[in-house]
Amino acid sequence: MPITLSHYVLDRWHAPEDPRIETRSAVTGEVVALSASAPPDIAAALRHARRFGGPALRRLNFPQRAGLVRALAEALLARKQELYELGFHAGCTKGDSWFDVDGGAGALFSYASTGRRQLPEGRLLIEGESERLGKAGGFLGQHILTSRQGCAVQINAFNFPVWGLCEKLGPALLAGMPVLIKPATATAYLAERCVRIFLEANALPPGALQLICGPMGNGFDHLDGQDVVSFTGSAATAMKLQRHPVIAREGVRFVAERDSLNASILGPDALPGTPEFALFVGEIVREMTVKAGQKCTAIRRIMVPAALLGDVEGALKQRLGQIQVGDPRRDDVQMGALVSLAQRADVREKIALLRGEASLVFGDPDHIEAKGADAQAGAFLPPILLRCDNVKSASAVHEIEAFGPVATMIPYRDGADAATLANLGGGSLALSVITHDQDFAAALLESSACQHGRVLVLDRDCAAESTGHGAPLPNLLHGGPGRAGGGEEMGGLRGIMHYMQRTAVQGSPAMIARITGEHQPGAPLTTGAEHPFRQRLGQLAIGYTFHTPEREVTLSDIEHFAHFTGDTFYAHMDEAAARANPLFGGRVAHGYLILSFAAGLFVDPAPGPVLANYGLEHLRFIKPLKPGDRMRVALTVKAKKQTKPDMGEARWAVSVTNQDGELVAAYELLTMNAA
Amino acid sequence: MPITLSHYVLDRWHAPEDPRIETRSAVTGEVVALSASAPPDIAAALRHARRFGGPALRRLNFPQRAGLVRALAEALLARKQELYELGFHAGCTKGDSWFDVDGGAGALFSYASTGRRQLPEGRLLIEGESERLGKAGGFLGQHILTSRQGCAVQINAFNFPVWGLCEKLGPALLAGMPVLIKPATATAYLAERCVRIFLEANALPPGALQLICGPMGNGFDHLDGQDVVSFTGSAATAMKLQRHPVIAREGVRFVAERDSLNASILGPDALPGTPEFALFVGEIVREMTVKAGQKCTAIRRIMVPAALLGDVEGALKQRLGQIQVGDPRRDDVQMGALVSLAQRADVREKIALLRGEASLVFGDPDHIEAKGADAQAGAFLPPILLRCDNVKSASAVHEIEAFGPVATMIPYRDGADAATLANLGGGSLALSVITHDQDFAAALLESSACQHGRVLVLDRDCAAESTGHGAPLPNLLHGGPGRAGGGEEMGGLRGIMHYMQRTAVQGSPAMIARITGEHQPGAPLTTGAEHPFRQRLGQLAIGYTFHTPEREVTLSDIEHFAHFTGDTFYAHMDEAAARANPLFGGRVAHGYLILSFAAGLFVDPAPGPVLANYGLEHLRFIKPLKPGDRMRVALTVKAKKQTKPDMGEARWAVSVTNQDGELVAAYELLTMNAA
Repeated sequence: MPITLSHYVLDRWHAPEDPRIETRSAVTGEVVALSASAPPDIAAALRHARRFGGPALRRLNFPQRAGLVRALAEALLARKQELYELGFHAGCTKGDSWFDVDGGAGALFSYASTGRRQLPEGRLLIEGESERLGKAGGFLGQHILTSRQGCAVQINAFNFPVWGLCEKLGPALLAGMPVLIKPATATAYLAERCVRIFLEANALPPGALQLICGPMGNGFDHLDGQDVVSFTGSAATAMKLQRHPVIAREGVRFVAERDSLNASILGPDALPGTPEFALFVGEIVREMTVKAGQKCTAIRRIMVPAALLGDVEGALKQRLGQIQVGDPRRDDVQMGALVSLAQRADVREKIALLRGEASLVFGDPDHIEAKGADAQAGAFLPPILLRCDNVKSASAVHEIEAFGPVATMIPYRDGADAATLANLGGGSLALSVITHDQDFAAALLESSACQHGRVLVLDRDCAAESTGHGAPLPNLLHGGPGRAGGGEEMGGLRGIMHYMQRTAVQGSPAMIARITGEHQPGAPLTTGAEHPFRQRLGQLAIGYTFHTPEREVTLSDIEHFAHFTGDTFYAHMDEAAARANPLFGGRVAHGYLILSFAAGLFVDPAPGPVLANYGLEHLRFIKPLKPGDRMRVALTVKAKKQTKPDMGEARWAVSVTNQDGELVAAYELLTMNAA
Repeated sequence: MPITLSHYVLDRWHAPEDPRIETRSAVTGEVVALSASAPPDIAAALRHARRFGGPALRRLNFPQRAGLVRALAEALLARKQELYELGFHAGCTKGDSWFDVDGGAGALFSYASTGRRQLPEGRLLIEGESERLGKAGGFLGQHILTSRQGCAVQINAFNFPVWGLCEKLGPALLAGMPVLIKPATATAYLAERCVRIFLEANALPPGALQLICGPMGNGFDHLDGQDVVSFTGSAATAMKLQRHPVIAREGVRFVAERDSLNASILGPDALPGTPEFALFVGEIVREMTVKAGQKCTAIRRIMVPAALLGDVEGALKQRLGQIQVGDPRRDDVQMGALVSLAQRADVREKIALLRGEASLVFGDPDHIEAKGADAQAGAFLPPILLRCDNVKSASAVHEIEAFGPVATMIPYRDGADAATLANLGGGSLALSVITHDQDFAAALLESSACQHGRVLVLDRDCAAESTGHGAPLPNLLHGGPGRAGGGEEMGGLRGIMHYMQRTAVQGSPAMIARITGEHQPGAPLTTGAEHPFRQRLGQLAIGYTFHTPEREVTLSDIEHFAHFTGDTFYAHMDEAAARANPLFGGRVAHGYLILSFAAGLFVDPAPGPVLANYGLEHLRFIKPLKPGDRMRVALTVKAKKQTKPDMGEARWAVSVTNQDGELVAAYELLTMNAA
């Protein structure tokens, strides 16, 4: 009994009136799902997202949005078994679904954690420090990022229906943008279930998440300049969408992550018998067989020193010979099916083109054995290994991507040749270099890094923890230049900022402080009778300042400190030598003495809300303090962030000045405070 | 005698065979310049840039590139008089040319300084800290940026032929990318002279700079995925270029900065007589008249509280009445001509459209007086002020940009209304809010920041140093969402990174250290007999480590330190109170005592190459040190950068551990060392 897939728009499910698009099981060929042949009212869905979803998400602060993303991750994990079951229809083994489903939950968890740890407590991201735009310091510039007030339209690929959805949903929600998801038809039943799981978790505000299971129609006509389109899929579709007139006319932010001709390069040092040789063979086999090679990051080009070509070919043949293709439910099957018969036909066509310049050395695209399944009714295909012998005249191997368990070996002469060949791919998502030779890797990176979004250098030292060639990570950039589409996704905060708008704000220190919610140099200070160490986190007012009394730093202080700590550096102890120092011109106090005396001046000793000084940032010693100088300290509340129900972090701007009001040292002090 | 403009490609000037495109003086209508009607061989120029210019620039390190940019700035300043002379033909007053020419040199100087101060010594940008990708710390991820190996194609607007060229050239050269410049025909004679000045400075390597004075022909057909196209100009042209099939097919990075309907909002607090009212009037008049209003950031929409509309109108009329239009060489003229008669015709057309929903309150587009010039032969136009009375039904005022001395007053009800109206522009380069009311400004930013690339909040506090509504700054983002094109330019390092490729690199700590040239946590340490404080900057090897002996921290040390410094915080002094502290559970050593003892352990006291400890970064106290614990320190060379011929900065990774090898504190120490 096939599943009928519904759109979810305007906060309710809309079963299609005419569900006549059939999706068939990759394994049996039976109809698994029926979806609409017509889109819902996408203009209305976009309006709904902008009118309700966006404002609701923007009312939440970053920690609240992080909590929401975490709730989705938990809901997904709790019901992952449903998705594993559906995944079999898509030809996925348990391992394949683990990547997709657990990987998707992992991405959400990672984003929730990034949101909690790296984002502030408010709704606005402050990028970098404010900059003085004038000599007197009365006019500052500060870059901020705020939520874009449009809708994130996320068009996903068929191969990772859950993970691909999560990797984009997490950052958009954290950024405060509502999302309209358009999954690929071939696996829309998995995306639809995933969205049901998310909605049933009751974590999302109205309008925050919508789903279209079917064609987009003229949906792009209704995009505007605050929207973001994030596309994953083929270059041909990406190109068509990117060139839609509305994208350029309205200045819609458009990001594409397209398939690419990823390469893996074996270093010349990695002779048979080395750990790197074995790692290389393992990596190739894994990338060819996981998801039956239907991965945008999978290795398509196997680059091998010419002298090692025979060894690599032998090892790969041996390992690929152990791969059992068949019913993905079976434990004795290592590789399932392609997603559809159409996909298989396409891959076979591409193999035929590749065979124009590469010879088949393993696998036969036309003779298939499928364990426990009908090899013709299901979209099975064995791993196919090709070898390109005439490298000089080859071009198809660098341009044609067979999106299945297919890869081509390409011999190279030396490191420069390897880089040139790798770059012939015209930009890729992922490159791996398997070598223990640091110079080889560094030289290759110098010539090739700019052509790849991610580069894995794999060797014996990192193998135990390596996440592998093909795995994008939420905290690392995913996307690549040129053929890979030029897009950037994930990468921790970078991925979140993608759904926000960067704005340079200029104004007086007081105004910038008000807008950012953080104290700025030159902004007015407030003060009062109470020492700020007596105030709980919630009571601390930004800009509240404690001014200490003055303390003289004597020569005997310096000498005493030197002998006590052991720091008898000549600039503190030897007048003649210190006079020759180009920066001091005489004996000066230790920087650490200044820090220590500063604390002695501003610390309020009795137990109170300040639990600990846990760190310090951006300390600069600006003007030396000489014996007989007098120092004083101003301690100003710069920013704060509640991190737990009962405590949080306070960030203090500290400035130490001398008797002439000149700045001696400046730093930020970090304390943990009771909330 | 008109100037014949040449292309500069393949490292030589190519005078056109058929120079029949005429450019006429904006002031007299005489032919000033003749340019080619056909492009040079752009495919060859791009190949030349990629084959010679790119590699030559990439061989230079960042400080060397910064030096090159500085040399261009100096050459420009030295010959600015030539450009001022040519500028009169473009209708520019001295003040207008000052913005263009001195502004351009200023942008280059600013970039040179950013390059010198904020970029490392090598060729690769390290973005953020490396991240542990596994629990054991044996697998790291690090984002880096490397030069894109293509050509930067920079298509510039007519209004700032020098500044617009410089604002893009500086970042591209710093990033290591060769540049192909295509100026707008109307002022190509200024761009050509500027390029001649740069080339005659003999600072640029072959292939680094090329110029096309004429049409691009089918030049876009030859772009590839490592190229960057940076366009400034009209939305219509931007759209046509952005939709060129090669852009999407090859994944060419395309950035557009388009004209936009910038607004300036007067706060309701800024009553006549307040400093803000006067600032507002001054800002409007300046933006309407500088460059005869031909600025992509100029104020097109003057938003005024309804109650103040009459006052603002009166003040503007009075001030605009003092503006004398005419020959820009004359000292008694405040506003020159538009760039061409075609431009004037276009502006008149737009005014006619605006008059469909706004009434003319100052200036007559058809009656022009031009002091010392022929008002019909020259492209003169007086300042034109319009007023929109029926705001509800108005749309043209938010959509039609008259690119000249034209602006429309729009009354608003309250802050929310002002934000809504401002956002009707659909995305702009610059918004200004003139108010002394922080709450008004902050609320407006919350609703509107995402629609603007830059927001100036102007008030009495920052007026003395304010750079004004219309001035983009090299260290702040220039570009805006939506109608403004969605591009980002300048913004300090951000602008440089635009011409580089971001790549996530994964590998062992040793491998990441080798690739980045900086020590990484977990990378192998080297050591030797010599204390690193005995080594000059050039001798210090990344990873070289000094291990100190152990030192016990006694209770009497803690008490002594407390009384000496005055820091008698209870966690150090009162066992019962410290035991109640959730983080300590007993008396602990002061953080500053640990820092001071650490220095006592690692400092080598005699005069030597280390001149000063000038700062400290990222200090975290990780595990408390209790009385009787023993501490030791490892001091590792993390990174270094020569900043002057005779000295530079060394950055040390410092870790303090206890007798069980547990991490007590970690930080980065900054020293100034002799080179």
